[in-house]
Amino acid sequence: MTFTLHRSQSSGSSPRRGSLKTAHGAIETPFFMPIATKGAVKTLSSADMAGLGAGILLSNTYHLYMRPGLEIMQKAGGLHRFMNWSGPILTDSGGYQVFSLSKMRTLSEQGVEFQSPWDGSKHMLTPEKSIAIQQTLGSDIVMAFDECPPYPCEKKYAHEAVERTTRWAQRSQEQFQQKIADQPNRGQLLFGIVQGSVYADLRAQSARELQAIGFDGYAIGGLAVGEPTESMYETLASTLEELPADKPRYLMGVGKPENIVQAVRLGVDMFDCVIPSRNARHGLAYVWREKNAASDSAAAPKSAPLSGAAFYETVHITNEKNKTAFTVLDSACGCLACGGGYTRAYLHHLFRVGEALGQRLLTAHNIKFYLDLMTRLKGAI
Amino acid sequence: MTFTLHRSQSSGSSPRRGSLKTAHGAIETPFFMPIATKGAVKTLSSADMAGLGAGILLSNTYHLYMRPGLEIMQKAGGLHRFMNWSGPILTDSGGYQVFSLSKMRTLSEQGVEFQSPWDGSKHMLTPEKSIAIQQTLGSDIVMAFDECPPYPCEKKYAHEAVERTTRWAQRSQEQFQQKIADQPNRGQLLFGIVQGSVYADLRAQSARELQAIGFDGYAIGGLAVGEPTESMYETLASTLEELPADKPRYLMGVGKPENIVQAVRLGVDMFDCVIPSRNARHGLAYVWREKNAASDSAAAPKSAPLSGAAFYETVHITNEKNKTAFTVLDSACGCLACGGGYTRAYLHHLFRVGEALGQRLLTAHNIKFYLDLMTRLKGAI
Repeated sequence: MTFTLHRSQSSGSSPRRGSLKTAHGAIETPFFMPIATKGAVKTLSSADMAGLGAGILLSNTYHLYMRPGLEIMQKAGGLHRFMNWSGPILTDSGGYQVFSLSKMRTLSEQGVEFQSPWDGSKHMLTPEKSIAIQQTLGSDIVMAFDECPPYPCEKKYAHEAVERTTRWAQRSQEQFQQKIADQPNRGQLLFGIVQGSVYADLRAQSARELQAIGFDGYAIGGLAVGEPTESMYETLASTLEELPADKPRYLMGVGKPENIVQAVRLGVDMFDCVIPSRNARHGLAYVWREKNAASDSAAAPKSAPLSGAAFYETVHITNEKNKTAFTVLDSACGCLACGGGYTRAYLHHLFRVGEALGQRLLTAHNIKFYLDLMTRLKGAI
Repeated sequence: MTFTLHRSQSSGSSPRRGSLKTAHGAIETPFFMPIATKGAVKTLSSADMAGLGAGILLSNTYHLYMRPGLEIMQKAGGLHRFMNWSGPILTDSGGYQVFSLSKMRTLSEQGVEFQSPWDGSKHMLTPEKSIAIQQTLGSDIVMAFDECPPYPCEKKYAHEAVERTTRWAQRSQEQFQQKIADQPNRGQLLFGIVQGSVYADLRAQSARELQAIGFDGYAIGGLAVGEPTESMYETLASTLEELPADKPRYLMGVGKPENIVQAVRLGVDMFDCVIPSRNARHGLAYVWREKNAASDSAAAPKSAPLSGAAFYETVHITNEKNKTAFTVLDSACGCLACGGGYTRAYLHHLFRVGEALGQRLLTAHNIKFYLDLMTRLKGAI
């Protein structure tokens, strides 16, 4: 069994703990994946990530395909060796990036044609191509190639996108099953991606059609793209009801700490989001509201209240009041910043004078906060 | 004795090993000081610096006075605590920066008036002020406030600058001796700075006058400011002859690895330079020419030839040929990059896609190269 639930679940809508086996080790669910877009979590090394206790990283197929490109990845022997990370890696399919980052993209049944924003060269990303790239990267979890429509989205278009996503998922699965001559299967897993915007019936259709094809896990895509939070939770809850209990469920690109708490309550197992790292680079840090929260959680994790957004606060490090704040962000935190003894006043100074070390220390801190959040959530289930 | 030579020297112009005692520990000479301009070695934390084996850091009085300013430094309890570095720190006097970075500076006998490049505010830096700032910073080695003339420099002006530097050195020493009410002397040392451009007689005059005042050590300033290398070596050799053998000698802002080798041969004990860190940020790495040089040096340091610039080479990491170079920069190096297993191909990729991690790993590598160079030089004396 690739995925094992620690408690059997009668319904799709309750929190759950499990274990997901990959070719690079097992990870306890629910978990959060820090984002190493271009083969590095911005400002941090793979050794830093291991030190923070990250269990799995996410990398971007689109970015790595563009630079350094497949030839380098092949010669490097895959992404793990290239970035020197021995834990599991999930790669997205590139679909989302093709839509959000490329100029002059043209969608067809075949796939998406697009122009490189770096050198203007033309490329075509198809389900077959996306999977083949991910096979070359050697990621532990491969994502099917999907179409993620924007929000808001007319129901007619959302319906077309769901059906195209199903056909692309089928082609993704077929490519995944093919043995590539010089790329042996490395125990990779393939996940399908449920689309359907905020329409419950389309989400149900998408979930049913993907299950008919059969995947190692199911992702919920196309959320947190601008819809109201309540709408996201409703769509998520109804979608989860349509997914099998015995497969891991991955909510893509979500989100704020309170979103993750709520999604775990609803039965999601996997998360990724740029929020902790991107906010860190802009000087915003997450800290537990209670004193010594992290150590409390280690001692008595189940007592920690994680309702709403009340369990944490955000620190704007460039705020004037941090100029003379000679305490670390969180004395119970074990990140490079807090564990290293770097005060808020020092971080404030580093941001004010533009020293990149400030961004690095805050990124490490925020990722640790998210990882600690998952630890607390696991403890609370 | 603050400074102890391991072998007594009959002449001022031969290589020497010694030990310099400071309030934050003793350091073996000759040594190199990585530059933490604004309270951080660019991209690296104090923990990183300790990991690389740096024995002492250099920080800039001018920059720290401008930002975060003295009030913060006072409240922080000094620079060591502010940046969380428990080893020794040397601070420059700010004179060089006032001349090179400030707009609308006006030199007078009193000191230098200048305008902040950040907010346009007017400031005055005098010998008394510079020393008082460094007393607040609590650096282990305080530098006298000097005038560093540009190159080339008319002899008449160089002469005036020498005499002003002597008068300022006297005032620096007087300020240094005063007990500041709320800033107890923390076992700080005060160094004088020899000026005189490339004129041997002016250098001799400057060295004599400073010794008459009396300092814990003597720096040679105003070199590597554009003069030919041979001229720098000649001036350095003649100046060293004028300095007492029993005090540490610090060659400011120099330089390339071969410059350091030559200066150590002539009897210099201390160095600082932005070259390793600045070049790293531009993608240039230093590596030993011999295979396994670093491990060889540990085993048989005296056999290592360090003549000319032949003992090392520079690697331009963005060079196309590094795209598929799946080896570390130097397999015998213990830096964050090489010891961490990050290949040249990965570093190349990080630089090409603009990931700050690349700059960090290369900075760590180059600083380790400079520190290893000093270890090899110590072994060869």
